[in-house]
Amino acid sequence: MDKNYFKNRYSVRAYDQTKEVPAELIDTLLATATHAPNTGNMQTYSVVVTRDPARIADLAPAHFNQPAIRSAKAVLTFCLDFNRFNTWCRINHTEPGLDNLQGFTWAVIDTSIFAQQFCTLAELEGLGTCYLGTTTYNAEQIAKSLRLPKGVVPVVTVTVGYPAENPGVQPRLPLHAIVHHDTYNNPDDEGIRDIYAEEEALESNRRFVEENNKDSLAAVFAEVRYPKAANEQFSRVYKEFLKNQGIEI
Amino acid sequence: MDKNYFKNRYSVRAYDQTKEVPAELIDTLLATATHAPNTGNMQTYSVVVTRDPARIADLAPAHFNQPAIRSAKAVLTFCLDFNRFNTWCRINHTEPGLDNLQGFTWAVIDTSIFAQQFCTLAELEGLGTCYLGTTTYNAEQIAKSLRLPKGVVPVVTVTVGYPAENPGVQPRLPLHAIVHHDTYNNPDDEGIRDIYAEEEALESNRRFVEENNKDSLAAVFAEVRYPKAANEQFSRVYKEFLKNQGIEI
Repeated sequence: MDKNYFKNRYSVRAYDQTKEVPAELIDTLLATATHAPNTGNMQTYSVVVTRDPARIADLAPAHFNQPAIRSAKAVLTFCLDFNRFNTWCRINHTEPGLDNLQGFTWAVIDTSIFAQQFCTLAELEGLGTCYLGTTTYNAEQIAKSLRLPKGVVPVVTVTVGYPAENPGVQPRLPLHAIVHHDTYNNPDDEGIRDIYAEEEALESNRRFVEENNKDSLAAVFAEVRYPKAANEQFSRVYKEFLKNQGIEI
Repeated sequence: MDKNYFKNRYSVRAYDQTKEVPAELIDTLLATATHAPNTGNMQTYSVVVTRDPARIADLAPAHFNQPAIRSAKAVLTFCLDFNRFNTWCRINHTEPGLDNLQGFTWAVIDTSIFAQQFCTLAELEGLGTCYLGTTTYNAEQIAKSLRLPKGVVPVVTVTVGYPAENPGVQPRLPLHAIVHHDTYNNPDDEGIRDIYAEEEALESNRRFVEENNKDSLAAVFAEVRYPKAANEQFSRVYKEFLKNQGIEI
Protein backbone atom coordinates (compact mmCIF):
# COMPACT_ATOMS: atom_id res chain seq x y z
CA MET A 1 0.00 0.00 0.00
CA ASP A 2 1.21 3.47 -0.89
CA LYS A 3 1.11 5.70 2.18
CA ASN A 4 0.45 8.71 -0.04
CA TYR A 5 -2.42 7.08 -1.91
CA PHE A 6 -5.17 8.97 -0.05
CA LYS A 7 -3.73 12.41 -0.89
CA ASN A 8 -2.88 11.56 -4.47
CA ARG A 9 -6.03 9.74 -5.55
CA TYR A 10 -8.34 10.89 -8.32
CA SER A 11 -11.38 9.53 -10.11
CA VAL A 12 -10.82 7.76 -13.44
CA ARG A 13 -13.39 7.94 -16.25
CA ALA A 14 -11.56 6.09 -19.06
CA TYR A 15 -10.69 2.40 -18.68
CA ASP A 16 -8.30 0.03 -20.43
CA GLN A 17 -10.38 -1.97 -22.91
CA THR A 18 -7.87 -4.82 -23.02
CA LYS A 19 -8.01 -5.65 -19.29
CA GLU A 20 -11.01 -7.31 -17.70
CA VAL A 21 -11.85 -6.93 -14.01
CA PRO A 22 -12.39 -10.47 -12.68
CA ALA A 23 -15.71 -11.09 -10.90
CA GLU A 24 -13.80 -12.84 -8.09
CA LEU A 25 -11.66 -9.74 -7.48
CA ILE A 26 -14.78 -7.56 -7.19
CA ASP A 27 -16.38 -10.04 -4.79
CA THR A 28 -13.26 -10.16 -2.61
CA LEU A 29 -13.07 -6.36 -2.43
CA LEU A 30 -16.80 -6.14 -1.62
CA ALA A 31 -16.49 -8.79 1.10
CA THR A 32 -13.76 -6.73 2.74
CA ALA A 33 -15.77 -3.52 2.29
CA THR A 34 -18.68 -4.95 4.30
CA HIS A 35 -16.44 -4.52 7.37
CA ALA A 36 -16.94 -0.75 7.09
CA PRO A 37 -19.14 0.59 9.90
CA ASN A 38 -22.94 0.57 9.48
CA THR A 39 -25.99 1.52 11.51
CA GLY A 40 -26.78 -1.11 14.16
CA ASN A 41 -25.10 -3.78 11.99
CA MET A 42 -28.35 -4.00 10.00
CA GLN A 43 -26.44 -3.72 6.68
CA THR A 44 -29.39 -2.17 4.87
CA TYR A 45 -27.60 -2.14 1.50
CA SER A 46 -27.03 -4.32 -1.55
CA VAL A 47 -24.86 -3.98 -4.62
CA VAL A 48 -25.59 -5.22 -8.12
CA VAL A 49 -22.45 -5.99 -10.12
CA THR A 50 -22.80 -5.62 -13.89
CA ARG A 51 -19.94 -6.91 -16.08
CA ASP A 52 -21.78 -8.15 -19.18
CA PRO A 53 -21.28 -5.46 -21.87
CA ALA A 54 -24.90 -5.87 -23.05
CA ARG A 55 -26.15 -5.21 -19.53
CA ILE A 56 -23.80 -2.24 -19.11
CA ALA A 57 -25.21 -0.88 -22.38
CA ASP A 58 -28.70 -1.32 -20.94
CA LEU A 59 -27.74 0.81 -17.89
CA ALA A 60 -25.86 3.48 -19.85
CA PRO A 61 -28.86 5.60 -20.99
CA ALA A 62 -29.99 5.99 -17.35
CA HIS A 63 -26.56 7.58 -16.80
CA PHE A 64 -26.87 9.76 -19.92
CA ASN A 65 -24.26 7.59 -21.68
CA GLN A 66 -21.40 9.24 -19.80
CA PRO A 67 -17.91 8.23 -21.04
CA ALA A 68 -17.20 6.54 -17.67
CA ILE A 69 -20.01 4.01 -18.13
CA ARG A 70 -19.35 3.51 -21.82
CA SER A 71 -15.78 2.38 -21.17
CA ALA A 72 -16.38 0.67 -17.78
CA LYS A 73 -15.43 -3.00 -17.40
CA ALA A 74 -17.74 -3.31 -14.40
CA VAL A 75 -20.58 -1.16 -13.10
CA LEU A 76 -21.54 -1.43 -9.43
CA THR A 77 -24.95 -0.10 -8.46
CA PHE A 78 -25.02 0.38 -4.68
CA CYS A 79 -28.59 0.37 -3.36
CA LEU A 80 -30.23 0.94 -0.02
CA ASP A 81 -31.98 -2.34 0.76
CA PHE A 82 -34.90 -2.69 3.18
CA ASN A 83 -36.23 -5.74 1.33
CA ARG A 84 -34.00 -8.20 3.17
CA PHE A 85 -34.67 -6.69 6.61
CA ASN A 86 -38.42 -6.32 5.95
CA THR A 87 -38.74 -9.96 4.86
CA TRP A 88 -36.78 -11.08 7.92
CA CYS A 89 -39.19 -9.10 10.12
CA ARG A 90 -42.26 -10.50 8.31
CA ILE A 91 -41.21 -14.14 8.77
CA ASN A 92 -40.56 -13.34 12.45
CA HIS A 93 -44.00 -11.72 12.85
CA THR A 94 -42.68 -8.28 13.76
CA GLU A 95 -43.17 -4.93 12.05
CA PRO A 96 -40.11 -3.16 10.60
CA GLY A 97 -39.98 0.65 10.85
CA LEU A 98 -37.36 1.84 8.38
CA ASP A 99 -39.73 3.13 5.67
CA ASN A 100 -39.34 6.81 6.63
CA LEU A 101 -36.87 9.73 6.52
CA GLN A 102 -34.72 8.37 9.36
CA GLY A 103 -34.45 4.92 7.76
CA PHE A 104 -33.79 6.47 4.35
CA THR A 105 -31.04 8.77 5.69
CA TRP A 106 -29.26 6.00 7.64
CA ALA A 107 -29.43 3.69 4.66
CA VAL A 108 -28.04 6.36 2.30
CA ILE A 109 -25.21 6.94 4.81
CA ASP A 110 -24.48 3.21 5.17
CA THR A 111 -24.67 2.55 1.43
CA SER A 112 -22.28 5.45 0.78
CA ILE A 113 -19.81 4.26 3.43
CA PHE A 114 -19.88 0.74 1.96
CA ALA A 115 -19.40 2.10 -1.59
CA GLN A 116 -16.54 4.33 -0.48
CA GLN A 117 -14.80 1.48 1.33
CA PHE A 118 -15.05 -0.53 -1.90
CA CYS A 119 -13.60 2.38 -3.92
CA THR A 120 -10.65 2.74 -1.55
CA LEU A 121 -9.92 -1.00 -1.77
CA ALA A 122 -10.34 -1.02 -5.56
CA GLU A 123 -8.02 1.97 -6.01
CA LEU A 124 -5.41 0.47 -3.67
CA GLU A 125 -5.60 -2.60 -5.94
CA GLY A 126 -4.70 -0.43 -8.96
CA LEU A 127 -8.23 -0.08 -10.36
CA GLY A 128 -9.77 3.21 -11.42
CA THR A 129 -13.23 4.16 -10.15
CA CYS A 130 -15.77 6.90 -10.74
CA TYR A 131 -19.05 7.70 -8.98
CA LEU A 132 -22.01 8.50 -11.25
CA GLY A 133 -24.26 11.16 -9.71
CA THR A 134 -26.93 10.31 -12.27
CA THR A 135 -28.03 7.38 -10.07
CA THR A 136 -30.56 9.45 -8.11
CA TYR A 137 -31.88 11.11 -11.31
CA ASN A 138 -32.95 7.95 -13.08
CA ALA A 139 -33.36 5.51 -10.22
CA GLU A 140 -36.53 3.95 -11.61
CA GLN A 141 -34.96 3.19 -14.98
CA ILE A 142 -31.95 1.63 -13.18
CA ALA A 143 -34.26 -0.36 -10.88
CA LYS A 144 -36.06 -1.82 -13.91
CA SER A 145 -32.83 -2.79 -15.60
CA LEU A 146 -31.56 -4.51 -12.41
CA ARG A 147 -35.00 -5.90 -11.41
CA LEU A 148 -34.91 -4.35 -7.95
CA PRO A 149 -37.84 -5.39 -5.72
CA LYS A 150 -39.81 -3.10 -3.43
CA GLY A 151 -37.65 -1.70 -0.61
CA VAL A 152 -34.53 -1.46 -2.79
CA VAL A 153 -33.41 1.94 -4.17
CA PRO A 154 -30.27 2.85 -6.16
CA VAL A 155 -28.13 5.39 -4.28
CA VAL A 156 -24.70 5.52 -5.95
CA THR A 157 -23.13 3.88 -8.99
CA VAL A 158 -19.41 3.21 -9.29
CA THR A 159 -17.76 2.46 -12.63
CA VAL A 160 -14.64 0.30 -12.49
CA GLY A 161 -11.76 -0.66 -14.76
CA TYR A 162 -7.99 -0.45 -15.09
CA PRO A 163 -7.11 3.22 -15.78
CA ALA A 164 -6.57 4.38 -19.36
CA GLU A 165 -6.06 8.00 -18.26
CA ASN A 166 -4.33 9.94 -15.51
CA PRO A 167 -6.30 13.10 -14.87
CA GLY A 168 -4.23 13.91 -11.75
CA VAL A 169 -5.28 15.18 -8.35
CA GLN A 170 -8.20 17.62 -8.47
CA PRO A 171 -8.12 20.85 -6.45
CA ARG A 172 -10.04 21.13 -3.18
CA LEU A 173 -11.26 24.12 -1.19
CA PRO A 174 -8.85 25.37 1.52
CA LEU A 175 -9.12 23.36 4.72
CA HIS A 176 -10.33 26.29 6.85
CA ALA A 177 -13.45 26.43 4.64
CA ILE A 178 -14.35 22.85 5.62
CA VAL A 179 -13.02 22.35 9.15
CA HIS A 180 -14.43 24.36 12.05
CA HIS A 181 -13.14 24.23 15.61
CA ASP A 182 -15.56 24.30 18.58
CA THR A 183 -18.34 26.12 16.70
CA TYR A 184 -19.14 26.86 13.06
CA ASN A 185 -17.04 29.70 11.72
CA ASN A 186 -19.39 31.49 9.32
CA PRO A 187 -17.32 33.53 6.88
CA ASP A 188 -18.53 36.92 5.64
CA ASP A 189 -18.80 37.65 1.90
CA GLU A 190 -15.12 38.54 1.67
CA GLY A 191 -14.25 35.26 3.39
CA ILE A 192 -16.37 33.33 0.89
CA ARG A 193 -14.66 35.13 -2.02
CA ASP A 194 -11.28 34.08 -0.58
CA ILE A 195 -12.41 30.48 -0.18
CA TYR A 196 -13.34 30.12 -3.85
CA ALA A 197 -10.61 32.43 -5.28
CA GLU A 198 -8.13 29.67 -6.06
CA GLU A 199 -10.69 27.45 -7.83
CA GLU A 200 -12.03 30.42 -9.80
CA ALA A 201 -8.52 31.32 -10.94
CA LEU A 202 -7.77 27.87 -12.40
CA GLU A 203 -7.27 28.00 -16.17
CA SER A 204 -9.63 25.03 -16.65
CA ASN A 205 -12.39 26.74 -14.66
CA ARG A 206 -11.93 30.08 -16.47
CA ARG A 207 -12.31 28.23 -19.77
CA PHE A 208 -15.36 26.44 -18.36
CA VAL A 209 -17.00 29.81 -17.50
CA GLU A 210 -16.17 31.22 -20.94
CA GLU A 211 -17.43 28.17 -22.87
CA ASN A 212 -20.70 28.33 -20.99
CA ASN A 213 -21.06 32.05 -21.60
CA LYS A 214 -21.52 32.82 -17.88
CA ASP A 215 -20.22 35.59 -15.65
CA SER A 216 -18.89 33.36 -12.88
CA LEU A 217 -17.99 29.81 -11.91
CA ALA A 218 -20.85 29.90 -9.39
CA ALA A 219 -23.26 30.59 -12.27
CA VAL A 220 -21.93 27.59 -14.21
CA PHE A 221 -22.72 25.39 -11.21
CA ALA A 222 -26.10 26.97 -10.44
CA GLU A 223 -27.38 27.50 -13.99
CA VAL A 224 -25.69 24.88 -16.18
CA ARG A 225 -24.51 21.90 -14.13
CA TYR A 226 -27.10 21.77 -11.33
CA PRO A 227 -29.97 24.12 -12.25
CA LYS A 228 -32.69 24.52 -9.64
CA ALA A 229 -35.60 23.59 -11.95
CA ALA A 230 -33.95 20.32 -13.01
CA ASN A 231 -33.01 19.44 -9.40
CA GLU A 232 -36.59 20.05 -8.34
CA GLN A 233 -38.00 17.95 -11.16
CA PHE A 234 -35.60 15.07 -10.39
CA SER A 235 -36.46 15.46 -6.68
CA ARG A 236 -40.17 14.91 -7.42
CA VAL A 237 -39.32 11.86 -9.53
CA TYR A 238 -37.00 10.36 -6.87
CA LYS A 239 -39.54 10.98 -4.10
CA GLU A 240 -42.29 9.32 -6.14
CA PHE A 241 -40.02 6.37 -6.85
CA LEU A 242 -39.14 6.07 -3.13
CA LYS A 243 -42.86 5.98 -2.38
CA ASN A 244 -43.42 3.23 -4.98
CA GLN A 245 -40.60 1.29 -3.29
CA GLY A 246 -42.43 1.63 0.04
CA ILE A 247 -40.48 4.53 1.59
CA GLU A 248 -42.31 7.72 2.55
CA ILE A 249 -39.95 10.52 3.49
CA MET B 1 -0.08 0.28 6.59
CA ASP B 2 -1.41 -3.13 7.48
CA LYS B 3 -2.74 -4.84 4.35
CA ASN B 4 -5.29 -6.70 6.48
CA TYR B 5 -6.55 -3.58 8.22
CA PHE B 6 -9.76 -3.33 6.17
CA LYS B 7 -10.89 -6.89 7.04
CA ASN B 8 -9.90 -6.69 10.68
CA ARG B 9 -11.21 -3.26 11.60
CA TYR B 10 -13.90 -2.63 14.23
CA SER B 11 -15.47 0.39 15.89
CA VAL B 12 -14.10 1.46 19.27
CA ARG B 13 -16.36 3.00 21.93
CA ALA B 14 -13.92 3.33 24.88
CA TYR B 15 -10.89 5.62 24.61
CA ASP B 16 -7.64 5.98 26.53
CA GLN B 17 -8.13 8.90 28.94
CA THR B 18 -4.39 9.50 29.25
CA LYS B 19 -3.76 10.17 25.54
CA GLU B 20 -4.93 13.33 23.81
CA VAL B 21 -5.61 13.48 20.07
CA PRO B 22 -3.72 16.54 18.79
CA ALA B 23 -5.79 19.09 16.84
CA GLU B 24 -3.05 19.17 14.15
CA LEU B 25 -3.34 15.41 13.61
CA ILE B 26 -7.10 15.69 13.09
CA ASP B 27 -6.63 18.59 10.67
CA THR B 28 -4.03 16.65 8.68
CA LEU B 29 -6.28 13.59 8.42
CA LEU B 30 -9.25 15.76 7.41
CA ALA B 31 -7.18 17.57 4.77
CA THR B 32 -6.29 14.22 3.24
CA ALA B 33 -9.90 13.00 3.51
CA THR B 34 -11.13 15.91 1.36
CA HIS B 35 -9.50 14.09 -1.57
CA ALA B 36 -12.28 11.51 -1.40
CA PRO B 37 -14.69 11.80 -4.36
CA ASN B 38 -17.63 14.23 -4.14
CA THR B 39 -20.47 15.40 -6.37
CA GLY B 40 -19.28 17.89 -8.99
CA ASN B 41 -16.41 18.92 -6.70
CA MET B 42 -18.88 21.19 -4.86
CA GLN B 43 -17.76 19.83 -1.45
CA THR B 44 -21.13 20.54 0.17
CA TYR B 45 -19.94 19.46 3.60
CA SER B 46 -18.29 20.83 6.73
CA VAL B 47 -17.01 19.27 9.91
CA VAL B 48 -16.98 20.74 13.38
CA VAL B 49 -14.18 19.39 15.58
CA THR B 50 -14.89 19.40 19.32
CA ARG B 51 -11.98 18.65 21.69
CA ASP B 52 -12.79 20.83 24.70
CA PRO B 53 -14.26 18.49 27.39
CA ALA B 54 -16.86 21.13 28.35
CA ARG B 55 -18.05 21.34 24.75
CA ILE B 56 -18.10 17.55 24.40
CA ALA B 57 -20.22 17.46 27.56
CA ASP B 58 -22.56 19.97 25.93
CA LEU B 59 -23.00 17.66 22.91
CA ALA B 60 -23.35 14.44 24.92
CA PRO B 61 -27.07 14.71 25.85
CA ALA B 62 -27.98 15.05 22.15
CA HIS B 63 -26.31 11.64 21.76
CA PHE B 64 -28.12 10.22 24.80
CA ASN B 65 -24.82 10.29 26.76
CA GLN B 66 -23.56 7.15 25.02
CA PRO B 67 -20.29 5.76 26.46
CA ALA B 68 -18.49 6.53 23.17
CA ILE B 69 -19.08 10.27 23.50
CA ARG B 70 -18.45 10.32 27.25
CA SER B 71 -14.94 8.92 26.83
CA ALA B 72 -14.14 10.57 23.44
CA LYS B 73 -11.06 12.79 23.19
CA ALA B 74 -12.48 14.42 20.07
CA VAL B 75 -15.97 14.54 18.55
CA LEU B 76 -16.33 15.28 14.85
CA THR B 77 -19.76 16.39 13.66
CA PHE B 78 -19.90 15.99 9.88
CA CYS B 79 -22.57 18.23 8.37
CA LEU B 80 -24.01 18.77 4.93
CA ASP B 81 -23.24 22.39 4.12
CA PHE B 82 -25.15 24.46 1.55
CA ASN B 83 -24.34 27.71 3.39
CA ARG B 84 -20.94 28.17 1.73
CA PHE B 85 -22.25 27.34 -1.77
CA ASN B 86 -25.40 29.45 -1.32
CA THR B 87 -23.41 32.49 -0.18
CA TRP B 88 -21.01 32.05 -3.10
CA CYS B 89 -24.02 32.01 -5.47
CA ARG B 90 -25.59 35.07 -3.82
CA ILE B 91 -22.46 37.22 -4.13
CA ASN B 92 -22.26 36.11 -7.78
CA HIS B 93 -25.91 37.02 -8.41
CA THR B 94 -27.01 33.52 -9.32
CA GLU B 95 -29.61 31.26 -7.70
CA PRO B 96 -28.46 27.99 -6.12
CA GLY B 97 -30.75 24.96 -6.45
CA LEU B 98 -29.62 22.42 -3.86
CA ASP B 99 -32.42 22.97 -1.32
CA ASN B 100 -34.39 19.87 -2.33
CA LEU B 101 -34.33 16.06 -2.13
CA GLN B 102 -31.65 15.68 -4.82
CA GLY B 103 -29.35 18.21 -3.14
CA PHE B 104 -30.01 16.65 0.26
CA THR B 105 -29.28 13.12 -0.98
CA TRP B 106 -26.04 14.08 -2.77
CA ALA B 107 -24.87 16.05 0.25
CA VAL B 108 -25.62 13.14 2.63
CA ILE B 109 -23.67 10.85 0.27
CA ASP B 110 -20.72 13.26 0.02
CA THR B 111 -20.66 13.98 3.75
CA SER B 112 -20.67 10.23 4.49
CA ILE B 113 -17.88 9.52 1.99
CA PHE B 114 -15.79 12.33 3.53
CA ALA B 115 -16.47 11.04 7.07
CA GLN B 116 -15.62 7.48 6.07
CA GLN B 117 -12.36 8.54 4.42
CA PHE B 118 -11.47 10.33 7.68
CA CYS B 119 -12.30 7.19 9.72
CA THR B 120 -10.12 5.00 7.51
CA LEU B 121 -7.21 7.43 7.84
CA ALA B 122 -7.71 7.78 11.60
CA GLU B 123 -7.86 4.01 12.13
CA LEU B 124 -4.77 3.46 9.96
CA GLU B 125 -3.10 6.01 12.28
CA GLY B 126 -3.94 3.83 15.30
CA LEU B 127 -6.96 5.82 16.49
CA GLY B 128 -10.29 4.27 17.40
CA THR B 129 -13.50 5.70 15.91
CA CYS B 130 -17.22 5.20 16.31
CA TYR B 131 -20.16 6.63 14.35
CA LEU B 132 -23.08 7.94 16.43
CA GLY B 133 -26.41 7.29 14.72
CA THR B 134 -28.08 9.67 17.14
CA THR B 135 -26.95 12.58 14.97
CA THR B 136 -30.09 12.56 12.82
CA TYR B 137 -32.33 12.17 15.89
CA ASN B 138 -31.28 15.33 17.68
CA ALA B 139 -29.89 17.42 14.84
CA GLU B 140 -31.43 20.66 16.09
CA GLN B 141 -29.90 20.33 19.55
CA ILE B 142 -26.51 19.60 17.96
CA ALA B 143 -26.90 22.55 15.57
CA LYS B 144 -27.54 24.87 18.50
CA SER B 145 -24.50 23.61 20.41
CA LEU B 146 -22.27 24.07 17.33
CA ARG B 147 -23.98 27.30 16.16
CA LEU B 148 -24.71 25.98 12.69
CA PRO B 149 -26.18 28.58 10.35
CA LYS B 150 -29.04 28.02 7.88
CA GLY B 151 -28.09 25.53 5.17
CA VAL B 152 -25.97 23.40 7.50
CA VAL B 153 -27.32 20.09 8.87
CA PRO B 154 -25.59 17.43 11.03
CA VAL B 155 -25.45 14.07 9.21
CA VAL B 156 -22.98 11.83 11.06
CA THR B 157 -20.89 12.18 14.22
CA VAL B 158 -17.62 10.34 14.74
CA THR B 159 -16.05 9.94 18.18
CA VAL B 160 -12.26 9.63 18.25
CA GLY B 161 -9.56 8.59 20.70
CA TYR B 162 -6.80 6.05 21.24
CA PRO B 163 -8.48 2.67 21.91
CA ALA B 164 -9.01 1.49 25.47
CA GLU B 165 -10.85 -1.65 24.33
CA ASN B 166 -10.59 -4.30 21.65
CA PRO B 167 -14.08 -5.52 20.85
CA GLY B 168 -12.81 -7.50 17.83
CA VAL B 169 -14.24 -7.91 14.34
CA GLN B 170 -18.05 -7.93 14.26
CA PRO B 171 -19.91 -10.53 12.18
CA ARG B 172 -21.38 -9.58 8.80
CA LEU B 173 -24.12 -11.17 6.69
CA PRO B 174 -22.90 -13.72 4.10
CA LEU B 175 -21.66 -12.04 0.93
CA HIS B 176 -24.34 -13.59 -1.32
CA ALA B 177 -26.95 -11.66 0.70
CA ILE B 178 -25.33 -8.35 -0.26
CA VAL B 179 -23.78 -8.89 -3.70
CA HIS B 180 -25.98 -9.60 -6.71
CA HIS B 181 -24.71 -10.38 -10.19
CA ASP B 182 -26.46 -8.95 -13.29
CA THR B 183 -29.85 -8.57 -11.60
CA TYR B 184 -31.14 -8.56 -8.02
CA ASN B 185 -31.40 -12.05 -6.62
CA ASN B 186 -34.48 -11.91 -4.40
CA PRO B 187 -34.31 -14.77 -1.86
CA ASP B 188 -37.46 -16.60 -0.76
CA ASP B 189 -38.35 -16.92 2.93
CA GLU B 190 -36.08 -19.93 3.33
CA GLY B 191 -33.23 -17.97 1.75
CA ILE B 192 -33.79 -15.10 4.17
CA ARG B 193 -33.77 -17.53 7.11
CA ASP B 194 -30.41 -18.88 5.90
CA ILE B 195 -28.97 -15.38 5.50
CA TYR B 196 -29.67 -14.46 9.13
CA ALA B 197 -29.11 -17.92 10.67
CA GLU B 198 -25.48 -17.35 11.62
CA GLU B 199 -26.16 -13.97 13.30
CA GLU B 200 -29.17 -15.38 15.12
CA ALA B 201 -27.11 -18.27 16.45
CA LEU B 202 -24.43 -16.07 18.03
CA GLU B 203 -24.32 -16.39 21.80
CA SER B 204 -24.29 -12.58 22.22
CA ASN B 205 -27.40 -12.20 20.04
CA ARG B 206 -29.25 -15.03 21.81
CA ARG B 207 -28.58 -13.32 25.11
CA PHE B 208 -29.71 -10.03 23.58
CA VAL B 209 -33.06 -11.61 22.57
CA GLU B 210 -33.51 -13.15 26.02
CA GLU B 211 -32.65 -9.97 27.93
CA ASN B 212 -35.18 -8.03 25.88
CA ASN B 213 -37.84 -10.67 26.39
CA LYS B 214 -38.47 -11.06 22.66
CA ASP B 215 -39.11 -14.06 20.42
CA SER B 216 -36.51 -13.25 17.79
CA LEU B 217 -33.51 -11.09 16.94
CA ALA B 218 -35.64 -9.41 14.26
CA ALA B 219 -38.09 -8.34 16.98
CA VAL B 220 -35.27 -6.82 19.04
CA PHE B 221 -34.31 -4.68 16.04
CA ALA B 222 -37.88 -3.79 15.06
CA GLU B 223 -39.39 -3.32 18.52
CA VAL B 224 -36.54 -2.31 20.85
CA ARG B 225 -33.64 -0.78 18.94
CA TYR B 226 -35.41 0.91 15.99
CA PRO B 227 -39.16 0.92 16.70
CA LYS B 228 -41.37 2.29 13.94
CA ALA B 229 -43.16 4.89 16.10
CA ALA B 230 -39.87 6.41 17.33
CA ASN B 231 -38.39 6.42 13.81
CA GLU B 232 -41.49 8.18 12.52
CA GLN B 233 -41.40 10.75 15.29
CA PHE B 234 -37.68 11.46 14.70
CA SER B 235 -38.38 11.62 10.95
CA ARG B 236 -40.92 14.40 11.50
CA VAL B 237 -38.47 16.27 13.71
CA TYR B 238 -35.58 15.92 11.21
CA LYS B 239 -37.80 16.98 8.30
CA GLU B 240 -38.97 20.06 10.22
CA PHE B 241 -35.38 20.91 11.10
CA LEU B 242 -34.31 20.51 7.46
CA LYS B 243 -37.09 22.92 6.49
CA ASN B 244 -35.92 25.44 9.11
CA GLN B 245 -32.43 25.14 7.63
CA GLY B 246 -33.87 25.96 4.19
CA ILE B 247 -34.10 22.46 2.70
CA GLU B 248 -37.49 21.13 1.58
CA ILE B 249 -37.36 17.46 0.70
